[in-house]
Amino acid sequence: MASIPGDGASNQPEHPTLLIPGPVEFDDAVLGAMSHYSQSHVGAPFVATFGETLSMLRRLFQTSNPSSQPFVISGSGTLGWDMVAANLVEKGDEVLVLHTGYFADSFADCLETYGVSATQLKAPIGERPQLSEIEKALKAKEYKMITVTHVDTSTGVLSEIEALSQLVHRVSPETLVVVDGVCSVGCEDVQLDQWGLDAVLTASQKAIGCPAGLCIVMCSERAMKRFQTRKTLPASYFASFKNWLPSGSWLLGTCDSKKTNINQVMQNYEAKKASYFATPSPQLIHALHTSLTQILSRPLSERFAAHREASQRIKSTVEKMGLVQLASKPENQASGMTAIYLPDGVKAPEILPTLLKKGVIFAGG
Amino acid sequence: MASIPGDGASNQPEHPTLLIPGPVEFDDAVLGAMSHYSQSHVGAPFVATFGETLSMLRRLFQTSNPSSQPFVISGSGTLGWDMVAANLVEKGDEVLVLHTGYFADSFADCLETYGVSATQLKAPIGERPQLSEIEKALKAKEYKMITVTHVDTSTGVLSEIEALSQLVHRVSPETLVVVDGVCSVGCEDVQLDQWGLDAVLTASQKAIGCPAGLCIVMCSERAMKRFQTRKTLPASYFASFKNWLPSGSWLLGTCDSKKTNINQVMQNYEAKKASYFATPSPQLIHALHTSLTQILSRPLSERFAAHREASQRIKSTVEKMGLVQLASKPENQASGMTAIYLPDGVKAPEILPTLLKKGVIFAGG
Repeated sequence: MASIPGDGASNQPEHPTLLIPGPVEFDDAVLGAMSHYSQSHVGAPFVATFGETLSMLRRLFQTSNPSSQPFVISGSGTLGWDMVAANLVEKGDEVLVLHTGYFADSFADCLETYGVSATQLKAPIGERPQLSEIEKALKAKEYKMITVTHVDTSTGVLSEIEALSQLVHRVSPETLVVVDGVCSVGCEDVQLDQWGLDAVLTASQKAIGCPAGLCIVMCSERAMKRFQTRKTLPASYFASFKNWLPSGSWLLGTCDSKKTNINQVMQNYEAKKASYFATPSPQLIHALHTSLTQILSRPLSERFAAHREASQRIKSTVEKMGLVQLASKPENQASGMTAIYLPDGVKAPEILPTLLKKGVIFAGG
Repeated sequence: MASIPGDGASNQPEHPTLLIPGPVEFDDAVLGAMSHYSQSHVGAPFVATFGETLSMLRRLFQTSNPSSQPFVISGSGTLGWDMVAANLVEKGDEVLVLHTGYFADSFADCLETYGVSATQLKAPIGERPQLSEIEKALKAKEYKMITVTHVDTSTGVLSEIEALSQLVHRVSPETLVVVDGVCSVGCEDVQLDQWGLDAVLTASQKAIGCPAGLCIVMCSERAMKRFQTRKTLPASYFASFKNWLPSGSWLLGTCDSKKTNINQVMQNYEAKKASYFATPSPQLIHALHTSLTQILSRPLSERFAAHREASQRIKSTVEKMGLVQLASKPENQASGMTAIYLPDGVKAPEILPTLLKKGVIFAGG
C-alpha cells in the first residue's frame, strides 16, 4: 500500500521506507498540506475545503445518490465501529459478523459494548466464510446487520463484497450490509450504490494516503433511514449521528425533540455553510482534500488495476522465494497488502531489525 | 490565545491573522512537525516521541503522582466528555454540572447520553455559580461527580477551580472534581495534585498551540481507582479506558475478564514499549511534542503571567473603546480570550467581514 518508488523526487528527509499496511508513505503534497496555516473551522475558506472533501468522498465510494451520507470525524478507524454500533443498530439487535482475522473479533467486541448481540461466523485462518455458510446463517436467525472486513490487516484475506451483498439482499433483504474498509478503501473496488452496501467505514492512513487521525464513514440512504427510525437514542455522544446531521433527518418518535440537540454539521459543510458540533482538524482535512484530489485525477479502475499489478509482482516474488501467504487462494488475496508466514526457524523480532538496517520497515504479525 | 506578534519571522504564507478562541495561530516549528515523514505507530522512534509527549503532559497538568494517567486520543475536545461520562461515572449516577455558558449544556447532554443524571447549577450570563450555592447543592444530594468549565468559550467566564475543589473535598469528599479545560489548559494555571482535581480534559488546538485533532485527558489516581471499581462495563468502545490501559488497572469484579479485551496502550507508550488499540496520528503527536517542548522550556508561571498581561492589555483597550465584556467582574474573566457585547446597532455578520478586510478574523457569538 506504500507509494511506489520512482514516483518522483521527494522533499522528505531520508528515512527508512515504511512498508507496513498503514500508515503508508505519504506524498510530498499531502504532507505539505498537513502544515497548512491555521484557519477558522467555521470560516468560508475552510468550509469550502471540507465541503469539497465530502463531495469527493462520494466519488471514492462510488455513490451518486444524494441521500447517501459521508462523515469525516477526528478519530481513528476504530471510531468507525462505534459510529456503526451506536447508530445503525439498537440494544438487543442481532448482528452477524463474518470473521477473516483479528479485526472481526474487535468489531464484535465493539458491537457488544453497545448491547448488540454479535454472532461470529468464522473461517480457518487464511480463508473466508463461504457464501453457502453465510446463506445458512442468515436463514437461521433474523439479523439486523451483517458486517464484513473487506481486507483484514492481520491476515491479508480479501472478502468478496459484491457477491456477499447480492446474497444478503436476496435471502435477508432487511439486513444492513456493513463493510469495514479500513484496509481496502482506496486500493480495492468499493461500489456503494451498485453493490447495495449500507455503510463502509475506513480511516485516512492506509490506501487513501493521508496521515492518521480521521475516521471516514459513508452511509447509504437505507442506512440513514434505519437511523432515523430508531426507537432509542444512540448510546454515544461524540459518535452519535444526531450530533452531526440536520434536524430533518432525525425524527425520533419516542424522544423529546428538545433534548435531542439536533445538529447539521456534515450536510452544512457539504453545502459550504458553517456549522459546529466539535472542532474538526483543518490540517488533516486539507491533507485528505489533497490525497482525494490526486486519487480522483484518473479513473478509479486504473488505480485499482495498478494496485493489483504491483501486488501480483510482490506475490510472485514471495512465491519464488518459497514463502507462503496467509491468504490461501488467489481469489481471497488482497491487492493492498501481503501477509506471509515466516520460514521455520525465522522469528519476526530477529528478522525485522535486520530489514530495518537495510532501510525498510515491515510489520510483525 | 493567538501567538504574540513579534515572536520572530514566520515561514507561513501571508494569511489573515486568526484571533478566534481556537484553533489559534500555530508556531512554524509546530506546523513543520505536522508534515513529519511517515512512521510506524508501533516502531521505536515514534513510540519514544509519544512516550515523551505523555510524560510532558504530566508537567503541563502539574502532577508528579505516578498513578495519575494521561490519555492522548485522536478526536476533538468533545470526545473528552465521552471519556469522562463513559468511564468515571455509571448509569444512574448523579452529577452536578456548574453552568457558565453553552459548554455546560453540552457536557450535561453528553452525561445524560450515558444514562447519568446531570443537574445543572446555573448563574446569570457572565457570572459563575457562587461557592455558597455550590455548597448548598452538594449538601442536598449525593453527587458522584461535579463538573466545571474552567473557561467557557461562549462567554469568556473563568471559574475558580482551586477554591471550588477545596470546597468539594470538604463538604462532599466522595465527589470527583472534573474540569473541562478545553479553553484553559496552557494559558490558565491547572494544578492536578495540589488542587486535588480528578480529571481535566482538553484539546490540542487552543492554548496548547497544536493543530486540532487530539483529545487530551489527565486523570488523578483517585479517578483511576473509581474507574477500576466500576460495577458495569464502560458503555463506549473507542472512548473506553479499558481499551487504553493495562490489565492490572482493570479488575472488574462483576465481568468475565476474558471478555474485557484488556489493553495497555497509554502506559506502554509512556514506558517506550509498542502497543496497539487504535492507530494514533504520528504527525499530530509530533506537533504536540513540539508545542509541549516549547511550553515547558520556561516555568509555567511565567507563561500564565504573560497570558494575563497580554489579556489585560486587550481588556483595558476594550474598556477604553466603551465595549462591555460578557464576563462581568475582573476575577471571573479568562486570560486566554475576551468575549464582548457588540455596541447597539452593530451586528456580527456585518462587522466580521469588515475586520477580515483588515486582515484579522474574530469569532461571532
